[in-house]
Order: sequence, then C-alpha cells, then structure tokens
Amino acid sequence: MKYAHRMNGVKASEIRELLKLSVMPDIISFAGGLPAPELFPIRELKEASAKVLDNCGQEALQYSPTEGYDPLRMKIAQRMKYFKVETSMENILITSGSQQGLDFSGKIFLDPGDAVAVESPSYAGALNAFKSYESQFVDVKTDHDGMIIEDLIEKIENNRSIKMIYVIPDFQNPSGRTWSLERRRKLLDVARRFDLPVIEDCPYGELRFEGEPIPSIKSLDDDGRVIFLGSFSKTFSPGLRIGWVCADKEIMTRYLSVKQSSDLQASSISQRELDMYLQMYDFDAHIDKVRETYKRRRTLMCQLMETHFPKEVSYVKPSGGLFAWIELPENLDAKEILLKSVEKKVAFVPGGIFFPNGGHENTMRVNYSNMPEEKIEEGIRRLGLVLHEAIENCK
Amino acid sequence: MKYAHRMNGVKASEIRELLKLSVMPDIISFAGGLPAPELFPIRELKEASAKVLDNCGQEALQYSPTEGYDPLRMKIAQRMKYFKVETSMENILITSGSQQGLDFSGKIFLDPGDAVAVESPSYAGALNAFKSYESQFVDVKTDHDGMIIEDLIEKIENNRSIKMIYVIPDFQNPSGRTWSLERRRKLLDVARRFDLPVIEDCPYGELRFEGEPIPSIKSLDDDGRVIFLGSFSKTFSPGLRIGWVCADKEIMTRYLSVKQSSDLQASSISQRELDMYLQMYDFDAHIDKVRETYKRRRTLMCQLMETHFPKEVSYVKPSGGLFAWIELPENLDAKEILLKSVEKKVAFVPGGIFFPNGGHENTMRVNYSNMPEEKIEEGIRRLGLVLHEAIENCK
Repeated sequence: MKYAHRMNGVKASEIRELLKLSVMPDIISFAGGLPAPELFPIRELKEASAKVLDNCGQEALQYSPTEGYDPLRMKIAQRMKYFKVETSMENILITSGSQQGLDFSGKIFLDPGDAVAVESPSYAGALNAFKSYESQFVDVKTDHDGMIIEDLIEKIENNRSIKMIYVIPDFQNPSGRTWSLERRRKLLDVARRFDLPVIEDCPYGELRFEGEPIPSIKSLDDDGRVIFLGSFSKTFSPGLRIGWVCADKEIMTRYLSVKQSSDLQASSISQRELDMYLQMYDFDAHIDKVRETYKRRRTLMCQLMETHFPKEVSYVKPSGGLFAWIELPENLDAKEILLKSVEKKVAFVPGGIFFPNGGHENTMRVNYSNMPEEKIEEGIRRLGLVLHEAIENCK
Repeated sequence: MKYAHRMNGVKASEIRELLKLSVMPDIISFAGGLPAPELFPIRELKEASAKVLDNCGQEALQYSPTEGYDPLRMKIAQRMKYFKVETSMENILITSGSQQGLDFSGKIFLDPGDAVAVESPSYAGALNAFKSYESQFVDVKTDHDGMIIEDLIEKIENNRSIKMIYVIPDFQNPSGRTWSLERRRKLLDVARRFDLPVIEDCPYGELRFEGEPIPSIKSLDDDGRVIFLGSFSKTFSPGLRIGWVCADKEIMTRYLSVKQSSDLQASSISQRELDMYLQMYDFDAHIDKVRETYKRRRTLMCQLMETHFPKEVSYVKPSGGLFAWIELPENLDAKEILLKSVEKKVAFVPGGIFFPNGGHENTMRVNYSNMPEEKIEEGIRRLGLVLHEAIENCK
C-alpha cells in the first residue's frame, strides 16, 4: 500500500526514543513541558462539572457548534485584553489545545515545498505540525529581543517560497526569551511589506514573573494578517485540551472550515465546564498562584545553575513561562550529556530538535514548572556534576 | 495573502446555509444526525466524573500519552469483539470522534489528485475531510447489499488514481443500508488485488434493531489493510468527542504520528471519565435502551411514511442506525421541497450533498433518533402534505 508523500516527513524521532528514558521511575525530569499538577484546580473543576451536568447535561453531552460554546468564546474575547487585543466572540474559535491551531495554520497556508520563517530555535511541535504539510523551514537569527529583522528581510528576499512567519514572542519555547515591542512592530512591518501571515503562538503569555506585559503582535495588527493562538493548557489544565484561535473574519472562515472537516468541534462538556469554572471562580487569582510557584522555581533553578554549572556553560534566565535554555561549549553534544545524566537519573531535552535545519547540538532545554523545589535542587546539582565531568574530559 | 491550494476545495456549502433554517424555534428537524439527548447517561457520568477527580485528578488534568489512556484502550479492544475483531490495546488509538479518524485517513493516504472510491451516496463529512487533501471521488454504484463489486473493479481498472476505498457497511449514512457478508468478503478481495487500504467507518454498528450482527470487514482482514473507525458518539455522547482507530501495527504508527502533530492527544479527563463509566455501569444495557428507543422511532416513522407519502415516493427502511433514505420522482428537487417544508416547520437534508460528483437531487435523508414520537408523527404528516402538493404540481 502507498502512503501519501507528506508521510515521508512524519517519522518517529530519535529524541523521542531518548526521552523514553526520562519516564523511568525516580528520575528527576526537566525534559517535558508539563505544568505543576499540584496546582490544578481539581476541587473547583469538580464543582463546575457537577453544576454543568445538573443544569444542562443534555446540551453538554450533545453535538454543539464548530465555532465553540458562545459564553466561553465571549470570555476568551474579554481575556484577550491581557494581550492588548480588543476583539469579540466572532473572532474566537475553540480548538483542541493550541497544537491544533498550529496544525490548522499549516493546512491553511502551506503547499508542498512552501517555507516557514521561524525563530532559531523554535518549538519542535510546531515544526512537526508544519512538516506534515511538506513544508521547508528558514530559521531566522534571534537575539534577546527576538528575530533579527535584517536577517528576516534578507532571507525572505532570497527565498520567495516563504509563505508564513511563525513566532512565539513571549517566554519562547525553548529559549525562554521575550520579544521587545520594537521588534514586534518591525516584524509586522516586514509581514505587511511581503504580504505574509504571522502565526503568533502564545501559550505562556499570562505566566509573566516580573515587568509589564508587552503588547501582543496581534494587538498591533491593523489588516488582519496575524493569527493569535492561545491556550488554557499552561494556566488551567492541558488534559482538558482547550485552546483558541483569534483571527479576523476572512481568515477565521478558513479555520472554521478546517475545524469542521478535522473533528467537527471541541468537546461540548469540557467547554461548558471551563466556562462554568470561569463564572464561579477567580481565574486571575489562580494564575497568580501558578505564576508565583513557577517564579520561585525559576529563581531557584537559575541560582543553582549559577552555583553548580561550570563557568563555560551559559544560560538564559526567562522572565516568565516554563523553560530555561542552556548553551554548552561548542564541542559538547547534549545528546551524549543526556545519556550520562540519565545514568544519574536526571533528564532534559537536547536542544538540537528545536533547530529545523540541524546543528546546535551543544544546547539544551530545562523545564522548571513540573518539579518541586527539592528535586530541582538535587537535579541541578547532579547535572552540574555531569557537565563538569564532560568539560574536564574534553580538555 | 495566499492560502494553500487545498483551501480551494474547502468552502461553506449552499446546503449549510439552507440548514440554518432548520434550527428555527419550533421546527421539527429530521435534518441533523443527533442522538436522543434524553437518553444520555447524565447522572452516571456525574458520578464517574466525581470519582475520577477524587481518585486521580492530577493525572486526569495533566498531559497524557498520544495513544490514549491504556485502560480505555483495553476496554475498546475488548468491545471490538462485537465486530468480530480479536485485537489488543496496541491496535487502538483514541481520537477526537471518528471524524478525526477520517481526517487522518485522508492525511495519511491521499496526495493531491488521488481518488477515493466511495459508495454512492456517502457520508458528506467524510467527503469534506478527504477533499481538504485535494482528493477526487469515484462513486461506486450500490444496491441493498453494498457496493456493486463489478462496478468497483471496472472503476479501479479505469482510474489508477484511486488510492483508498471508503465504506460505511452498517446502517450507512445516509442510505440506511447494510452490506451483506458476501459483499464485504468480495470488497476485501478487490482491495487485496489492487493493494488498496480500506477505511471502514462504523459509528452506528452497535445500534442494530433486528437480525444478527454481520462481521465487520476488519474482522475478515488478514493482511492489515483495513482501518476500522469506531465512535462513542452515537452510543454514549457526541459532546465528549471520543472515537477510536483500530489498525494493524505498521499503519498504526502513521496514525499515531499524525495524532501527535494534529493535537497531541485526546482529552485526558474525558478518556478517564468514560473509562470509569464503563467500569461502574452496564454499558451494554445502556446501548439496549438506545436501540429500543431508536427502533420504536424508526418503526413509527416508516409506518407514517407508508401512510402519508404519495405512492411515487420510495424509502429505505433501515435495520439499525439513525437514518432513513427517501427517493422522490426524478423531476423533483429536494432542495425546493426543503424550502416548502421549512414553511411548514419541518426540516430534512436534501440528498444531493451525499453524492460527491453531483446529481441525485431527488433524494433526501431523514433522521429519526433525535425527535420524540409525537413530533415524528406531526412532522411526517406535514412532510407528506408537502410531497403530495409537489407531485400534484408536476403533473
């Protein structure tokens, strides 16, 4: 039997095999991108769920509109104010997590051979979603303020197959970096000049530890070319699978058609439960609690890296989100470090998978949201020993 | 901005506009494919949900494996015995309804320009899903036993771009027909001879009103070319969005990769709730109740059509599922009948949308699962008046 050509790009990754090691019992894993389960509002969701089933069980278990549950869409439209976006329910589509928004973006904008301009590094799950539409990638140089705009322009001018720009401006996965307002403006100028859509992926935006929120690229968008992807996975629960697309009318009709042919609609009951939770409880207070916990863990992890890591190793201290980013001396391979550190029962993600065109094997991503403080302490200490040893062996 | 070429095939349908009429207040709608909401096990799900959140709330709200929740996969593997399939958890992937299994099948098997051999008529939602991968359709003649195998062979021989066969062998949507065992065997022979995969879509299989279940095509498959799509939408609840793919190992790895890039996983909590429900309650007894109700409604609707419809109108009496299929005299257009009948506050689906290559505008699909008996009585009476009038006007 013959598979479609696009399936050639879709294969089990070498890294995924390595990461299977990271679920061994007793391992201290900085590998995943999991929120802290002890913060999930379990009791509150139980109340909300009971109320939904008591009040409107029949509607909650029936088919419902592709767009999503209107009261939830309205609340999300309101919440978009945090990102400085003034919008209404009509511009919100409920998706099965923001990963589905990524998949739809590939489906809507990418023909085989088309290229996506992405940050270097970028989120591996997005690269996979786009790859399944036979895309190429142009990785644009980035610094602490975002993409280097001159590099973006040069690459677009030299590669007319670029059809879409994909960015994660807040607390980026994997680098932990946040774009400056100026770069956001300039990116949008470039997108206008070359008439390209911008996919703004923002699953961590509300998890800011310090400083003021920077307006989203969508908030600067005046001709409907920015598609904003949001998620409740990191602020509420990933297991519920609720994310959203915020887009202007014409583009929204495409996302809607694709949602309909892909899986008809998001879960009726999960949408109503989340909506009921948002009615009954103070979600912003909940997010504050998540923020505080992650900030504490971020601060601790960075202090420990400062103390225990060799001076040849540098890292990015994020001001929000879930991840810190580590650079090793160029001659070290993070995949080999992973094998060594798994022996000491510590795991992380080697950074190479975040570079669609290869290289950068001397980088690694560590997650701090999912491990309690004492494990962060023990894990970074052990990782420090592995790194010291590796650097010694290289001299 | 430029959209991908595949988006040309994805557009809002004329029929969808017509069907908006069918959600007017007080309308008697035979249009949708909705299960009876009064049968949803609301109280039971509330118990199951509370228990899941009490026992394992953290796991239920966290990310979980792409394949699905193992205990639920095991229970589904067991339930595949109803379809005469002996299988195990490894061959089960949990999807967001069986619509997602259809979308994945298109993604895995169809390159632009490839054709799918489908029954004439076939499920419009599947046609839409495949169309989004720029497919063509070859509609194969069907009779009361399924596809006419000689026509299938002739069409495959004359059209080498056929890459996949898609069928709904039990209580087909829209025709209500069920394939004989002999035709199932012969279809599989043809698929083997031309080395084609078979997508067996079976959302209604368990809703049989009379006679013995006929073994699924998957149960006859000895070389792993049949992909079986199942669903809890019609037996439990569509709002929960839980379906499954049952496929052999090599093909399953492709579905798994596509699931991962599409939306990572099905809802952790919905899977655990459904699993808990299956542990705590007698699901087969529940299905019996659904079956009885739908059988009663089917019988009533068919009796009423016999009484109230003009003798020029024929219909298929289904032995299970949700739909009956009506053929009008060739010179009548069901879209016009719909406009007339909506004036009398009755709706149905004009059959043309189920034929990917057009024609057959004199057909219509009516649903009996979603309306209580007194509304079926009133609705068919009114529809009868509209049909009598239309036939009179044509003479």
